[in-house]
Amino acid sequence: MIHQRLFAEFVATGLLLVTVVGSGIMAERLAGGNDAVALLANTLATFGGLYILIEVFGPISGAHMNPAVSGVMAARGELPWILLPSYILVQLAGALCGALLSNAMFDLPLLELSAKVRTGAGQWLGEMVATAGLLLVVLRAPASRVAVMVAAYIGAAYWFTSSTSFANPAAAFGRMFSDSFAGISPGDVPAFVVAQAIGAALGATIHTLLGKPHA
Amino acid sequence: MIHQRLFAEFVATGLLLVTVVGSGIMAERLAGGNDAVALLANTLATFGGLYILIEVFGPISGAHMNPAVSGVMAARGELPWILLPSYILVQLAGALCGALLSNAMFDLPLLELSAKVRTGAGQWLGEMVATAGLLLVVLRAPASRVAVMVAAYIGAAYWFTSSTSFANPAAAFGRMFSDSFAGISPGDVPAFVVAQAIGAALGATIHTLLGKPHA
Amino acid sequence: MIHQRLFAEFVATGLLLVTVVGSGIMAERLAGGNDAVALLANTLATFGGLYILIEVFGPISGAHMNPAVSGVMAARGELPWILLPSYILVQLAGALCGALLSNAMFDLPLLELSAKVRTGAGQWLGEMVATAGLLLVVLRAPASRVAVMVAAYIGAAYWFTSSTSFANPAAAFGRMFSDSFAGISPGDVPAFVVAQAIGAALGATIHTLLGKPHA
Amino acid sequence: MIHQRLFAEFVATGLLLVTVVGSGIMAERLAGGNDAVALLANTLATFGGLYILIEVFGPISGAHMNPAVSGVMAARGELPWILLPSYILVQLAGALCGALLSNAMFDLPLLELSAKVRTGAGQWLGEMVATAGLLLVVLRAPASRVAVMVAAYIGAAYWFTSSTSFANPAAAFGRMFSDSFAGISPGDVPAFVVAQAIGAALGATIHTLLGKPHA
Repeated sequence: MIHQRLFAEFVATGLLLVTVVGSGIMAERLAGGNDAVALLANTLATFGGLYILIEVFGPISGAHMNPAVSGVMAARGELPWILLPSYILVQLAGALCGALLSNAMFDLPLLELSAKVRTGAGQWLGEMVATAGLLLVVLRAPASRVAVMVAAYIGAAYWFTSSTSFANPAAAFGRMFSDSFAGISPGDVPAFVVAQAIGAALGATIHTLLGKPHA
Repeated sequence: MIHQRLFAEFVATGLLLVTVVGSGIMAERLAGGNDAVALLANTLATFGGLYILIEVFGPISGAHMNPAVSGVMAARGELPWILLPSYILVQLAGALCGALLSNAMFDLPLLELSAKVRTGAGQWLGEMVATAGLLLVVLRAPASRVAVMVAAYIGAAYWFTSSTSFANPAAAFGRMFSDSFAGISPGDVPAFVVAQAIGAALGATIHTLLGKPHA
Repeated sequence: MIHQRLFAEFVATGLLLVTVVGSGIMAERLAGGNDAVALLANTLATFGGLYILIEVFGPISGAHMNPAVSGVMAARGELPWILLPSYILVQLAGALCGALLSNAMFDLPLLELSAKVRTGAGQWLGEMVATAGLLLVVLRAPASRVAVMVAAYIGAAYWFTSSTSFANPAAAFGRMFSDSFAGISPGDVPAFVVAQAIGAALGATIHTLLGKPHA
Repeated sequence: MIHQRLFAEFVATGLLLVTVVGSGIMAERLAGGNDAVALLANTLATFGGLYILIEVFGPISGAHMNPAVSGVMAARGELPWILLPSYILVQLAGALCGALLSNAMFDLPLLELSAKVRTGAGQWLGEMVATAGLLLVVLRAPASRVAVMVAAYIGAAYWFTSSTSFANPAAAFGRMFSDSFAGISPGDVPAFVVAQAIGAALGATIHTLLGKPHA
C-alpha cells in the first residue's frame, strides 16, 4: 500500500535524524570537548541505528531515507517516477520531525537553527566521495546484506571524509534544526546538496562501469 | 517445560543486569570522570551481552528479559496470559539478583540504593521513544536476526535518547540497587515505568499501522 | 589428523595471547594513563581476534584455546579423554609462545614476569561468573554462530566482570609472562584457575538445567 | 572482463587508502594528542571500510587490494600469472590516488611525503606476524564470511602488532604520501615490504601445514 510506504519512509527518516542528532547532542554533552570521543559515539550510534532502520523499514518502503538514493532508484526504474516527489517530501518532513523530537528529548528549544559552519572545497569534495560511495554500496549490496553494509559504510565515512559524510540531502535539511555537534548552518546546506547530487550520479556511473559481478 | 522457561528468563535477566550494572561500575572506575568514554564502554558491553543473551535464551523462553516486551507479547497472543505474572516476577527477581551479584563482584555493599537522579519531561519522552523503538524492532525483526537487531538498537538508543534508553521496567527496577553510573534513584523509577508502558503501546501501534512487509 | 589438531590448537592459542597481550601493550602505550580507553582498545582487539581464530581454527581442532573448555568437552564426550592432556599441553605452550612473541614485537625483554596484582574475593567471583557464562555460550551456541557469540561474550565480560574476564587457565598462564596492562602476577594465577574451574562446572550445570531449546 | 577487474582493483585500493589515510587525518585532528582514541577511530573506520570494499569488489576482482595477497593467489593458481603485474600496477596506482584524494578532501598539499618513522626489528617482526595472519585468514575463510573476517582481523591487528599492521605493500606505498598519523616515511617502506613478503610466505606455509578443515 502506497500510504504505508510513505508512512514508513517518514518514520524511518525521522528515527534516522533522532539517531544522528540525538546521539550528537548526547555525545557533545558527555565528551567535555573531546571531539574524537564525541564522533566515535556518534559513529557507533549511527551504525546501529542505520542498520536496524534498513532492516525494519527496508521490506516496506526500501528504507531510502535519502532523496539522493530515491532519485537514483527512480532513474534506474526501481522506484516509479510518480512516487519520487512524495518520497522526498516525507523524507524532508520526517527529518524535520526527527530533529525537533531530538531537541524535545534533550530539553532544548524545539525549533533552533544551527550555527555550525561546514563549508569549503575540501568538504564539498568529501560529500561527493561520501555520496558516490554510498550509491555504490546501495546498488551493489546483495539484498540480505544491504543493511549492515550501508551502516558499515556510513560509519567508516564519518571518519574518512572531511565533511563527516552527510551523504543525504534530507539529513542535511534536518540537521539545520539542531544547534549541536551534529548541526549544519542553513546557508551551508545548498552546496552540500549539490555535491551530494554530483556524488550520487558519479556513484551510479561507476556502478555501471564495473559491470555485473562474476559470482 | 514451563519451569525451564521461567528459569531461563530469570538467568537471562540476571545476566542482563550484570552486563549493564557491572560494566557501568567498571567503566566509571576506569574512565576517571570522562563520561563519554564510560558510556561508550557501557554501550559496547550491553551490545555484546544483549546479543548473546537473546541468542542463548531466546530458543528457551523468548528471552524477553523485559516486562514491557512480555506484556505486548501477551496482548498479541504470543505469550499465554497465564504466564505473564510469572514472567514478570522472575524478571524482577533476576534483575535484583543481577544487581546484587554485580555489587559482590566489585566489592561493593551487597544491597545499596542508587542516588542517581533521572527525571524530567525530556527523559520521560526519551523512555517513550526508546521503548516504542524497541517494540518496533522486536515485533518486526526476522527471527534469525532479532538478537543482533535488538542489541544494535539498544546500543544506539543509549546515545540517541536523553535517558540512555532503559526501555525496560525490570532493568529500571534492578538498577535501583546500584549506586553507580548505571543506577537510578528509586523515586525516579515509577515515572520511567509509566513512560515505558506508553512507549511500548505506541511501538505496537506503529507496527500495526505499518502493515505486513512486502518481501 | 591428530597432529594437525594439536598444531592448530597451538597456533590458535598463541595468536590469542598475541591478540590479548600485544593489544594490551599497545593500548597501554598509547592511552597515556586513560585505563578506560586502553581497555576499550583491548576489548575490540580481543573481539576481532577471537572471532577470526574460532572461525579459522574451529573446523580443525574446535579452537578451544582454553583448558576449561577442553575439560568440559572431554567430560561431555565431545573430546576423547586421551587427547585432553595433549590439548592442555599445546594450549599452555602456545600461550607462552604468544606472550614471548608479543614481547619481541614490542621490543620488551623476551621473558618477563608480570607484577600486576589481580586478587580478592570479588575478582575470584568475577572469574567464576565469566567462565560460567563462557561455557553456557560455548555449549548452547549454534555451530554457525559460535565464533561471533564467544567473541561478543568475552568482549562484554571484559567490562562486566571485576576481573576483566580471563575465563581461561591458558590465558592466565600466558599473561604471567607480560609485565603490562594485560598481565597477571604469577602468584595470583592459581586462585584464578580454581575460580575458572568452578565457573566452568557451574556453566555446564546451568546448561543441563536449561534443557533443550524449543526451536 | 579483464579491464573491469583491473578497474575494480584500482577503485577498491583507492578507496581503501581513502579509508585508512582520511580517517587517520580526521582522527589526528580531532583527538588532540590522544593517540589511543585516534587509533580506535582509525581502527573502526578501517574495519567498516574493508568490510564493504571486499563485499562490493570481491565478486568482480577478488578485492585483493594488496600485492602480497595477489602474489600468493598467483602462486596458488587462483590468479593467472599473466594478470599479476597488472594487478600490482593498478593497486599501486589506486593507492597513490587514494592518498592524494584524502589530502585534497582535508585541504592538505595534494602531494606530500610522510616524515613518520616506522622502523626497527620489533616492527618488522610485527609486519611478518600481521601479514602471515592475514594470509591465513584469506586462505581459510569461507567465501561467505571472508569480508567480515578480513576486516575483523585487520582491526584487531592494528592493535596487537607493534607496526599497527600495514600487512600490505600497496598500503605502505600509498601511506608514504600522507604526512599524518597514518603515514610512513618513504625510507622505511622497503623493509616493511620485505617483512610483508616473508610474512605472506609464512602464512601460506602454515595454511598448508594445517591441512583441510574437518567440517
